[in-house]
Amino acid sequence: MAIKPKISINKRPPLDAKILFKGIQDGKREALSKALTLVESTKLEHRKIAKELVQLATPHSGSSIRIGITGVPGVGKSTFIESFGLFAIQKQKKVCVLAIDPSSEISKGSLLGDKTRMEQLSVHSDAYIRPSPTSGTLGGVARATRESILLCEAFGFDYLLIETVGVGQSETKVHSMTDIFLMLLLSNAGDEIQGIKRGIMEMADILVVNKADGENKRNAKIAANQLQQALHYFPLAKSGWTPAVETMSALNQEKIDVIWSKIQQFIDHTKQNNYFENNRKSQAVNWFKQSLTDQLVERIEKDSRFTEELRKLELSVESGNTDPFIAADKMIDFYFKYSSEAPA
Amino acid sequence: MAIKPKISINKRPPLDAKILFKGIQDGKREALSKALTLVESTKLEHRKIAKELVQLATPHSGSSIRIGITGVPGVGKSTFIESFGLFAIQKQKKVCVLAIDPSSEISKGSLLGDKTRMEQLSVHSDAYIRPSPTSGTLGGVARATRESILLCEAFGFDYLLIETVGVGQSETKVHSMTDIFLMLLLSNAGDEIQGIKRGIMEMADILVVNKADGENKRNAKIAANQLQQALHYFPLAKSGWTPAVETMSALNQEKIDVIWSKIQQFIDHTKQNNYFENNRKSQAVNWFKQSLTDQLVERIEKDSRFTEELRKLELSVESGNTDPFIAADKMIDFYFKYSSEAPA
Repeated sequence: MAIKPKISINKRPPLDAKILFKGIQDGKREALSKALTLVESTKLEHRKIAKELVQLATPHSGSSIRIGITGVPGVGKSTFIESFGLFAIQKQKKVCVLAIDPSSEISKGSLLGDKTRMEQLSVHSDAYIRPSPTSGTLGGVARATRESILLCEAFGFDYLLIETVGVGQSETKVHSMTDIFLMLLLSNAGDEIQGIKRGIMEMADILVVNKADGENKRNAKIAANQLQQALHYFPLAKSGWTPAVETMSALNQEKIDVIWSKIQQFIDHTKQNNYFENNRKSQAVNWFKQSLTDQLVERIEKDSRFTEELRKLELSVESGNTDPFIAADKMIDFYFKYSSEAPA
Repeated sequence: MAIKPKISINKRPPLDAKILFKGIQDGKREALSKALTLVESTKLEHRKIAKELVQLATPHSGSSIRIGITGVPGVGKSTFIESFGLFAIQKQKKVCVLAIDPSSEISKGSLLGDKTRMEQLSVHSDAYIRPSPTSGTLGGVARATRESILLCEAFGFDYLLIETVGVGQSETKVHSMTDIFLMLLLSNAGDEIQGIKRGIMEMADILVVNKADGENKRNAKIAANQLQQALHYFPLAKSGWTPAVETMSALNQEKIDVIWSKIQQFIDHTKQNNYFENNRKSQAVNWFKQSLTDQLVERIEKDSRFTEELRKLELSVESGNTDPFIAADKMIDFYFKYSSEAPA
């Protein structure tokens, strides 16, 4: 076979899910890396082994704390993760960092690509950093990340940090696969807050105003107070948790202990009121339904017998000539008329 | 035929879409009522005529301003609509009120059921009030409402008010079929705001603190100021419009002119920057895609050949035994294996 992946995953011995999974359980990082590459691959032969791996991992997964982290570029996510990771390691915890950034192909490693920004964490034996898959749709990347979570948990990590730079809907995806969601922000020169994206603040369990150092300390405090005020306008989340606002300096490793405690408080709180468990269950069911829907629609969209009709109807809807529901009815009729014939 | 609808729509002469539509264009309210009842019906024979009606109406639709209105029960929506409607009529405009409230079957006409709460508007010849369909899923009710919009526009209304009491996801549905979204709120005895629901405030183009009368006037002002502050935390909407916050007394018909002007400003603003037009186009395409997806999934869920497998997989996902993506793959395989056989 003449496949040339960047990381060579199909050298002999031939890839075998069981052997790879044994390697993962034995804590072999090379096995984990190979498995994650398989999970990220869209090649049919790789997906087959990936599925087997995921099936093997599922019963051994679920034991970590899954932390979502978002914030615009420049807010200090890498520095925060380095700081948090090293703090966790001090507490005898193992930390894994994953990322969802479907745009990273374009921005060429803006996200985690440059591991040197996490100098100490990236070389630590109790940490593992995996850059975002660099290609594919958001849906595909999200699927790969969610499957990676299972493999990393089977490996034995205590904390999984899932990072996103917040392009498009990636925050929502990260939110839908994590137990707790952190948002990093900056205070501006004035008292304005930087880095708030529509709809994201509401998902945050902990808001961290970063770079609260030097002259910026005061502004960060003011910004945090204002954030706290603004949060009053949001009713209680399903978790029953009131979002916390903290300032910190990830660079100076200041107050990382405060953030750490807040995370523990949130986990304790949600485990006590069963939100933690129920949330994971409903996340799983939602992923199932979403994936089912996505795949159905994808099958139709990719099926050359339907492409033309679909495009025609969409244009007609857009131009206001056909009602969207009528168009959908027509497409469904068209689909079920032909889908009973031989598949494409 | 032994069908007994509340409003008898199948007395002779037999229902004919073309005749009904002619009646609508001639401004006959009875024809409109009959057409809306057909659109709300889930009976196959009714849907057939409804589809024809919608197809006839589509080229004649689009000329009204579609206004979404939300607010918790007690906030004064009916009074607001009465006040707004009468003001519009003074300006020689025709007003139609629709509603989305899938829960109204349970709450027995909490919403618009009691037209007496809009005493003057409900009997005015330039106004038309249609209660929410009292049964069906939110998706079904939303579809009926969206189709009703087209029929009402073909009838010649200038303003369509689509009201929702905010149960579940109904606000999102209303938002996705209107040009402008109003949120009604109340100030509490203190300076707290009542009636804010997670995720709704962000959709609002105009926020109205109602019941700013008597002793409550001052509190309403304070509340409005705080809302304005909180809105600073939301970045600019796609429309490029900065949400407006106003106080008013719908009961005393005070400041309805201010709200009216704000609505005109919003419409002018969005027509000028093409958001108005583009938003309608993307709303239509989204409804098309959503309906397509919904119908596909519904077909599978309703197909007795698949129910058992679907339920089995869902339970397995929920209990953590099967990965959601693996489960979705299995379901898709199962579906495409059997869907080429004779349909159920």
